[in-house]
Amino acid sequence: MSQPPLRVALVGYGFMGAAHSQAWRVAPRFFDLPVEPQMAVIVGRDRVRVEAAAERFGWAESETDWRRVIERDDIDLIDICSPGVTHVEIAIAALEAGKHVLCEKPLANTVEEAERMADAATRAATRGVYAMVGFSYRRVPAITFARDLIAEGRIGELRQVRALYLQDWLVDADGPMTWRLDKDRAGSGSLGDIGAHAIDAVQFVTGRQVQSVSGILETLVKERPLLGESTGLSGTSSEERGQVSVDDVALFTGRLDGGVLGSFEATRYATGRKNAFRLEFSGSLGAIAFDFERMNELEFYDSTDPVGLRGFRRILVTEPEHPYMSAWWPTGHGIGYEHPFSHQVRDMLVDITAGVQPRPSFDDGLQVQRVLGAVEASSAANSSWIFVNNQGSALKFRTSERK
Amino acid sequence: MSQPPLRVALVGYGFMGAAHSQAWRVAPRFFDLPVEPQMAVIVGRDRVRVEAAAERFGWAESETDWRRVIERDDIDLIDICSPGVTHVEIAIAALEAGKHVLCEKPLANTVEEAERMADAATRAATRGVYAMVGFSYRRVPAITFARDLIAEGRIGELRQVRALYLQDWLVDADGPMTWRLDKDRAGSGSLGDIGAHAIDAVQFVTGRQVQSVSGILETLVKERPLLGESTGLSGTSSEERGQVSVDDVALFTGRLDGGVLGSFEATRYATGRKNAFRLEFSGSLGAIAFDFERMNELEFYDSTDPVGLRGFRRILVTEPEHPYMSAWWPTGHGIGYEHPFSHQVRDMLVDITAGVQPRPSFDDGLQVQRVLGAVEASSAANSSWIFVNNQGSALKFRTSERK
Amino acid sequence: MSQPPLRVALVGYGFMGAAHSQAWRVAPRFFDLPVEPQMAVIVGRDRVRVEAAAERFGWAESETDWRRVIERDDIDLIDICSPGVTHVEIAIAALEAGKHVLCEKPLANTVEEAERMADAATRAATRGVYAMVGFSYRRVPAITFARDLIAEGRIGELRQVRALYLQDWLVDADGPMTWRLDKDRAGSGSLGDIGAHAIDAVQFVTGRQVQSVSGILETLVKERPLLGESTGLSGTSSEERGQVSVDDVALFTGRLDGGVLGSFEATRYATGRKNAFRLEFSGSLGAIAFDFERMNELEFYDSTDPVGLRGFRRILVTEPEHPYMSAWWPTGHGIGYEHPFSHQVRDMLVDITAGVQPRPSFDDGLQVQRVLGAVEASSAANSSWIFVNNQGSALKFRTSERK
Amino acid sequence: MSQPPLRVALVGYGFMGAAHSQAWRVAPRFFDLPVEPQMAVIVGRDRVRVEAAAERFGWAESETDWRRVIERDDIDLIDICSPGVTHVEIAIAALEAGKHVLCEKPLANTVEEAERMADAATRAATRGVYAMVGFSYRRVPAITFARDLIAEGRIGELRQVRALYLQDWLVDADGPMTWRLDKDRAGSGSLGDIGAHAIDAVQFVTGRQVQSVSGILETLVKERPLLGESTGLSGTSSEERGQVSVDDVALFTGRLDGGVLGSFEATRYATGRKNAFRLEFSGSLGAIAFDFERMNELEFYDSTDPVGLRGFRRILVTEPEHPYMSAWWPTGHGIGYEHPFSHQVRDMLVDITAGVQPRPSFDDGLQVQRVLGAVEASSAANSSWIFVNNQGSALKFRTSERK
Repeated sequence: MSQPPLRVALVGYGFMGAAHSQAWRVAPRFFDLPVEPQMAVIVGRDRVRVEAAAERFGWAESETDWRRVIERDDIDLIDICSPGVTHVEIAIAALEAGKHVLCEKPLANTVEEAERMADAATRAATRGVYAMVGFSYRRVPAITFARDLIAEGRIGELRQVRALYLQDWLVDADGPMTWRLDKDRAGSGSLGDIGAHAIDAVQFVTGRQVQSVSGILETLVKERPLLGESTGLSGTSSEERGQVSVDDVALFTGRLDGGVLGSFEATRYATGRKNAFRLEFSGSLGAIAFDFERMNELEFYDSTDPVGLRGFRRILVTEPEHPYMSAWWPTGHGIGYEHPFSHQVRDMLVDITAGVQPRPSFDDGLQVQRVLGAVEASSAANSSWIFVNNQGSALKFRTSERK
Repeated sequence: MSQPPLRVALVGYGFMGAAHSQAWRVAPRFFDLPVEPQMAVIVGRDRVRVEAAAERFGWAESETDWRRVIERDDIDLIDICSPGVTHVEIAIAALEAGKHVLCEKPLANTVEEAERMADAATRAATRGVYAMVGFSYRRVPAITFARDLIAEGRIGELRQVRALYLQDWLVDADGPMTWRLDKDRAGSGSLGDIGAHAIDAVQFVTGRQVQSVSGILETLVKERPLLGESTGLSGTSSEERGQVSVDDVALFTGRLDGGVLGSFEATRYATGRKNAFRLEFSGSLGAIAFDFERMNELEFYDSTDPVGLRGFRRILVTEPEHPYMSAWWPTGHGIGYEHPFSHQVRDMLVDITAGVQPRPSFDDGLQVQRVLGAVEASSAANSSWIFVNNQGSALKFRTSERK
Repeated sequence: MSQPPLRVALVGYGFMGAAHSQAWRVAPRFFDLPVEPQMAVIVGRDRVRVEAAAERFGWAESETDWRRVIERDDIDLIDICSPGVTHVEIAIAALEAGKHVLCEKPLANTVEEAERMADAATRAATRGVYAMVGFSYRRVPAITFARDLIAEGRIGELRQVRALYLQDWLVDADGPMTWRLDKDRAGSGSLGDIGAHAIDAVQFVTGRQVQSVSGILETLVKERPLLGESTGLSGTSSEERGQVSVDDVALFTGRLDGGVLGSFEATRYATGRKNAFRLEFSGSLGAIAFDFERMNELEFYDSTDPVGLRGFRRILVTEPEHPYMSAWWPTGHGIGYEHPFSHQVRDMLVDITAGVQPRPSFDDGLQVQRVLGAVEASSAANSSWIFVNNQGSALKFRTSERK
Repeated sequence: MSQPPLRVALVGYGFMGAAHSQAWRVAPRFFDLPVEPQMAVIVGRDRVRVEAAAERFGWAESETDWRRVIERDDIDLIDICSPGVTHVEIAIAALEAGKHVLCEKPLANTVEEAERMADAATRAATRGVYAMVGFSYRRVPAITFARDLIAEGRIGELRQVRALYLQDWLVDADGPMTWRLDKDRAGSGSLGDIGAHAIDAVQFVTGRQVQSVSGILETLVKERPLLGESTGLSGTSSEERGQVSVDDVALFTGRLDGGVLGSFEATRYATGRKNAFRLEFSGSLGAIAFDFERMNELEFYDSTDPVGLRGFRRILVTEPEHPYMSAWWPTGHGIGYEHPFSHQVRDMLVDITAGVQPRPSFDDGLQVQRVLGAVEASSAANSSWIFVNNQGSALKFRTSERK
């Protein structure tokens, strides 16, 4: 390729590290990119494991200290896939060092951290250095297409939204305690992990922000066995149990711009649902429904069809006319979980090369973080409504004043 | 048939009157009943229309005043299908006159009315006169079967419940104002009309009552054209519009006995959903899902299946082993909307003949009414949690105190 | 009702007798009929059982000899639900006696019988006496609607047809031998029982007749235990087995008018499929798909939709605009297996009162019988193509000559 | 990686070239391979296009003459993705030169070619040089899993098979004539293109070969506009049309080892079906169903479930216990069309490194070719049954002799 190189460093080598590696590897093979990404270095604290990851994922070098990578002149973009608690420090340092940043979601563990990150991104953008947050579901072709349909007015005036993210990996109450269930380490539970995707997708597809919320967070199984979470103490009983300190279930109602009501659920206890990220948008002229377990399909209902011929259409979102799909396979040959990460890489590189702020920006990530914070505040305030941008107090307003 | 006759009077001849007539006509042809119901008299205020209904639906006589029917010695059971506002007076008078009563849901328009009706039913039961409320969805074989599966422990410990009743008949904002949208006449909107079904079904299937709720009621389209709602005044403009005074959408979270969370939605604005009454029960060992648009199917997930073989089973609830189904057609030949009304008639007649209180009783109906009232109260109190049995005040309790 | 009475006699009290009784009972309550059907007499050979059937199904009288009923002046219509072997004699006698006839499918056990019946029907029609064959699936609203859509040109030029009727009630090889598996008594196996429905539905929906066929009949389990089929001989071992002499599976390809190819399957060994009568019609502008297990739904694909928005629509065939449905319940409230029998009664009574030949006529039934015969002939002739109207010889024509 | 290198040359750069390139690129990143594949050289006749393909797909070199590549000592494996007409010459030359061969399906354009290729493969195997044919659908995890379930006896004795491969890309009769519709160039139509997949998948999943067939091939649209197929003559009218000389639709019945009947369809006229490769296997104890349009799902029916609880389970084939899936993403995160090509690369490299014949072998490919030939022969012989291994004559055998 004759494009100039763009040298990437990846921080983290877990599930997300694997998905992002695949995206950097594959995107240039299917999309015309303005630069040629080079998989320069992968960063992780454990030398043995990060070296193995470099070989497995195909990165030229490995490194154990992200600071050394940020200091290097030959790195153009830092891709942050490490745990949420590390985002704020790495992202700000990278932006200040003039590196573009792609940061996994949720942007941070707190609204305050997210605000600092968004500030840093705003400053960097003035110097042509850009930050993006990895809400990759936006790049699922069916979801992007849903956004397009709503923007075109295909479902008319938006009436209601439903967004459920259903998983079941905690259903077994005897499953072990892990760091993901410890608030100090994980930052959040189902709300931040999968509820954040639901919020971002709804805001993206509708073009509306969540303005206020009423909700409840719940921990269904409060203690789990400490298997494999060795305390290092002799005499540790196998019956020892740890406290689950994050939410298992988040249920909330949100009011979007213009007063539209959305109902949200994020749960790890929806038995039998493996990754059922479900969206439904009801409008005056039609409706759209989606389930990630069938990610290559979109359901569309058109109220302007003749009355006897109305019904939800099962659209296979695999036509060249659908977003991103002309790059892949013939009609009817679907894509998989990781392809949206290639779309994310493609879109980011196109934007930053053109000097355009890629979306979702850190401001977008901050907005999601504020909704997460407002849900937590509402849950702590007896589920009363909380304004996303003014979370200090549970507001006493009447139904009639809302709209 | 050699069974003794049971003479029935039906009050009302609308949609529900048609469905109940069909049940009284058909049930004896498919079930072994301890009495032989006779379709004696149908009651309605408009003489011409009630006479036509008698002929169309096959009732021996018609009558315009329900009081005269209650006074008759040759009537054994009053089946009340008239608007909710009339329930309290007719039901209490009938019970006091020694007539069994089958009363359509919701039991009444207010908790206070429902309490009076439940009191009358309790007194009547001591004399062997029984009252039942017509939550007919309990008798959908798939729903009855779901109840049985949960009672047998098939899904283990209940973890979460979802109950959505989705319709779309109000989607067109230019549709006319009707009495159903006027709170004075209809008593309630989507909450009482279809939300009541969701509450009863959840309580029936799980065997648990809703103890507290947090929710919001919403009117999406606040004015509609007054077509055909003539004011009797000359000069009425065709542009005159009426105020919609009932809720279009009800969104609420309920906490059931034992602390289980349920999320509820009742809406008339779910574009493309015609009668999507959806239930999902998630447990520690499995899950159950239902959608009334496919009423002959139940989905069941069994976590005790071998790990690679787990999946939601689409069970056709048409086997002779399924509730009520041995009376109908061979396997795979489904039933329709009205069949559960025959099941209701069958169960009621078996119970009252045996001197057993049929369920759902007026107490059951009262409990649903209290949940409806609590949702209204919560909506008026900024969605804060309201105890169903103590609705006077919005309670200030903390999450940690709930369970 | 002020309509003149039409007195009906039903011959047979099995599964079909129950379904037809329900239709005679219910149709007048939901449809405006030009005559008032009266359930006069039910006929069966076993006195005890036919009397019980009269009481259970609601017929005024019972009778053990169908000839006596045909002699009566006060009977207007004979509804024949007895086994296929009896059809020819009863139907011809009834028609000659001036009674209208509704005869269950398949019309007869052989083409020769069917020809005699069709002749009798033609003669009777000249006297205003009409015969109809009970292919009730034509009156499933979704199937009637499919016919309408194709007639309107909604799927353009017809390209291909698939018709599968899948059941599984013979899957257990240790299930007992029954008369239905004995060709002498049953006349036919899956081909005549359910394959006949597939043929009639395809011909009805497309408006095209099957002209030639190539197929194979197969008996998968050739012997079954003679449980409850007592031989009357002492010393009969419980291990005695009977020979299955009918087909379990019929697979055939048919060429319709205009050369359109249809693929057909009728089987009782499709494990897990209970009554999966599936139809698919592919055309130059669209397609239609149906599965009786979801009888209230029709899938429709419109190739004239914008390219990215094409998909099979799941239409709930429950709108008042859909065939027959304005008589029943509100939108989204489906009907069951037996409702098409009411539609059949309604249509037949409207037609015979108007002096119009009801469809499917005995000629229509004869045509289906000829297709059944041609499939048997093809199976016996090494699956070579057989013309439906010239079954004597396996025709040696080349592919290039076909169209 | 410390594994020894395996240097690959790819012949062809169309759709299949892209899919195979992705597999060589990605497989080493997700699977532990015994050798390290190196994307050495891509071959195509057009120098400009093959150079572009090398850069786009990531091959180190490009070449215009496959013979030069086969002469090179530094190439270990030839991956043949060029049109079917070229397979025989390239594959035999490569095997004789000691190169392993992966050859796209169908193996050849005629049975005779396939026989020569299979002979060459047999000879090569004695020298440790292996050939494999690219029936990649075998490596769809759901299909591999179906094979495992049947091998374990999960559906008991196999009773019936259905295999439909439905596409619709020829529905528009005004679509242009292309080389794919010209038998001289394409070799075959829907039968060889997609019907071959159906045959291989059925044989693979059931472990049984097709022994005899009866079928018909059909060309629905016989002429198409010669757009872009310039004749080189001046004055060529735009209305000029070309003759479609391949089949559009193939319908056939096959008898597998043990007498099991399978029904097959391959069509490019199934309006609305984009890549609906559907398989159904019915057995005495259960059934399995699959549709490639939902490639991450498998439906499984278990007749040994309690009677009321039987139903087709929708299994998400995304668990680590499912074939190949532990290499990819967490539960519920599906894969796409191209992943089975990585599975194919993985399996082939494991086998050839271990000195084991990879499957499907050229013998397997030859067997499919013979079935294709038998279907053609049957279609030409009035659909009479043809033995796959003795295609010279249409056999005159009776049904009773078949099993």
